[in-house]
Amino acid sequence: MLSAEIIAVGSELLTPTKTDTNSLWLTEKLNEIGIEVRLKTVVGDDRARLEETIREALRRSDIVISTGGLGPTEDDITREVSAKAVGRELVYHEELVEDLRERFRRWGREMPKTNKRQAYVIEGARILPNLNGSAVGMAVEIGEKFLVVLPGPPRELKPMFEAHVLPTLKKSAGEIVVRRRILRVAGMGESAVDEAIAPIYKSFETVETSILFNRSEIEIHLAAKAKTETEAETILEELAGKIVQQLGVAVFALDGELMEEIVGKLLTENNKTLSIAESCTGGLIGERLTDVSGASRYFIEGAVVYSNQAKTRTLSVAPEIIERFGAVSAECAEAMARGMREKAETDFGISVTGIAGPDGGSDEKPVGTVFIGYADGAKTKSIKITLPGDRYLIRWRASSAALDYLRRQILKSSSEIVK
Amino acid sequence: MLSAEIIAVGSELLTPTKTDTNSLWLTEKLNEIGIEVRLKTVVGDDRARLEETIREALRRSDIVISTGGLGPTEDDITREVSAKAVGRELVYHEELVEDLRERFRRWGREMPKTNKRQAYVIEGARILPNLNGSAVGMAVEIGEKFLVVLPGPPRELKPMFEAHVLPTLKKSAGEIVVRRRILRVAGMGESAVDEAIAPIYKSFETVETSILFNRSEIEIHLAAKAKTETEAETILEELAGKIVQQLGVAVFALDGELMEEIVGKLLTENNKTLSIAESCTGGLIGERLTDVSGASRYFIEGAVVYSNQAKTRTLSVAPEIIERFGAVSAECAEAMARGMREKAETDFGISVTGIAGPDGGSDEKPVGTVFIGYADGAKTKSIKITLPGDRYLIRWRASSAALDYLRRQILKSSSEIVK
Repeated sequence: MLSAEIIAVGSELLTPTKTDTNSLWLTEKLNEIGIEVRLKTVVGDDRARLEETIREALRRSDIVISTGGLGPTEDDITREVSAKAVGRELVYHEELVEDLRERFRRWGREMPKTNKRQAYVIEGARILPNLNGSAVGMAVEIGEKFLVVLPGPPRELKPMFEAHVLPTLKKSAGEIVVRRRILRVAGMGESAVDEAIAPIYKSFETVETSILFNRSEIEIHLAAKAKTETEAETILEELAGKIVQQLGVAVFALDGELMEEIVGKLLTENNKTLSIAESCTGGLIGERLTDVSGASRYFIEGAVVYSNQAKTRTLSVAPEIIERFGAVSAECAEAMARGMREKAETDFGISVTGIAGPDGGSDEKPVGTVFIGYADGAKTKSIKITLPGDRYLIRWRASSAALDYLRRQILKSSSEIVK
Repeated sequence: MLSAEIIAVGSELLTPTKTDTNSLWLTEKLNEIGIEVRLKTVVGDDRARLEETIREALRRSDIVISTGGLGPTEDDITREVSAKAVGRELVYHEELVEDLRERFRRWGREMPKTNKRQAYVIEGARILPNLNGSAVGMAVEIGEKFLVVLPGPPRELKPMFEAHVLPTLKKSAGEIVVRRRILRVAGMGESAVDEAIAPIYKSFETVETSILFNRSEIEIHLAAKAKTETEAETILEELAGKIVQQLGVAVFALDGELMEEIVGKLLTENNKTLSIAESCTGGLIGERLTDVSGASRYFIEGAVVYSNQAKTRTLSVAPEIIERFGAVSAECAEAMARGMREKAETDFGISVTGIAGPDGGSDEKPVGTVFIGYADGAKTKSIKITLPGDRYLIRWRASSAALDYLRRQILKSSSEIVK
């Protein structure tokens, strides 16, 4: 089994508030192709220590991956120091400067001179293109060893690693493959899920199963080891099927999909449209729905009705309802959903009103009290939920609960069973 | 200034889901008494690598702190390996076994034999009592250097470190304290900021300055070292002032505040109200604004007008505007802002319409083209921006640009200068 080390570069990663998360993602990717991570280092913008770290890592391990320190400024030292550590020169690539100039031009700006620094590449290294940033990566073979130099921002690092590093590493890695799958469950707790499915997953000895709580959902992580991808996938398929049989409609995603993707898929399949009225979530549900490309097919309109006047003005919620029951009530939630749906002329209308805190709670309606309203052509209804957590978590959980409520209603009305 | 390294021991910290968080807490404590963390390592239950890591760390840095690997089982190797790394014997302490036996008795259990392993201590080390667990810690001076061996569980490590390590380190650390500050800058690139302020921050020798790019903004991290907190704060204040003088209105936060907090503060101070019409950001701006507790004071209403009908129906955008100029146009953005403001009866109306991708781009309006509209009582205007990145980043950057546009308009109209 090949061994790897990961070196995260950047003084900010040595402060009390920042932590290196790239290495977790990289570890997962490396593990999947049977490469083990044996050591991780975080080093600041410190030439001597970084040079020594790279050198030692290459002595000990087969593959060394550094992340960060490839920016255009003077404290970005990885380019220079890694070249020195492997005893090679940096070579200037005019075509990289041309490419950068062109990119800046497209953004309507002139390339600052300092960005020229990003056109230096270790002699003999393969250049790894960066789709989402200005720093290219580098991959260089040093005898039997392999050094990969990646930029720090996850959105630059991830696609670069997947497209330009992983395929190469895969070739040199060994025989065992690992395939992973994430199932997501809504409306159940961590221990309840574990109790229900432990007898099932324990009988699959080649699959590592772990159950995690993720803000508003339970994630069931499956990792199957086998000799071929097909074999691993078959095992995963079988285990996932048994878990769904046990947990039923609570399982909303079979392959890591997000709640907003699943809801979008259901709406598309059923050819239905949606509008959303949000109070305490302030636009979060709309934001999540429209984070999915193509959402315009089913998501027609949203209203962020933070004030009572807005609820009345935009959604025709009768002032008497707010006066009598309060803006946070089943009655108001239902009126919001109905008003939204009628105004936007959609098949479904969903609403959320609640108390996200930290202020605004009372004995009768404490922080975390949330009402979700639902309206279709035939009926209007609502549920009340009480959510734990701080403002951020309550808002997030309310948005997930609203999407899940809609999902269950669509499944019910279309009489479909989750596949 | 004394330098420290932290070594986290444990194979579980090299998996894709676990991360070392002890080092963040330790870093904070060390920084507070003026000790700088220069390197962090995560190493598995791997004798050779751990021994080498401890040895190298002691060579490079004044203080080395290891966490974890002190349990009673065979894969807990820190005790043995650290003794070997510093060339000393492990000494058996009968009184520690007695103490452990007594503890187990109190829990109504008999001490398992394996726990005897926890009674071995590096020769000459000071024993650090553990109030919340069975593994004692060790502190040992190796010439001028200082090695501290702590257990992994945070609730054992923290009280042990505070009671038995911090006071000793404080004495040798001397007088220096570190104070940190983050400035945020909008509308400028990383290199442009660096070029403009490098001459300033370089003249402050006791402040470490680093410049980071954070999705849509530039962060300037300042860490001032001084003999007292007051002195450090005075230096930070002076440097921050000079940076603002240089960069002007582009600096929007002087102490780490988020854009949505700053906009909220400006609206509150000026006693103004706001409504937002969002197309491509889908609710993200409303979500960010209402993430700030108390936003109901100034944020009245938002509309997520994803479809053209919604733009016309809800915001009274004339269909001819959409037909003639397109939904992604300056004309449409301005009509949206004006319509929103009039409908919601607010002081300001802000709108966003653009192409977040991955689909929907054209030669004339490629993915990333975004128009931001602004309306107040007196005028309506708009800007066009072109944003790089994927769908997520384009949406995030568009939301930040819209908030920043509003911020600049408020500053202009209230003729205030950023303080």
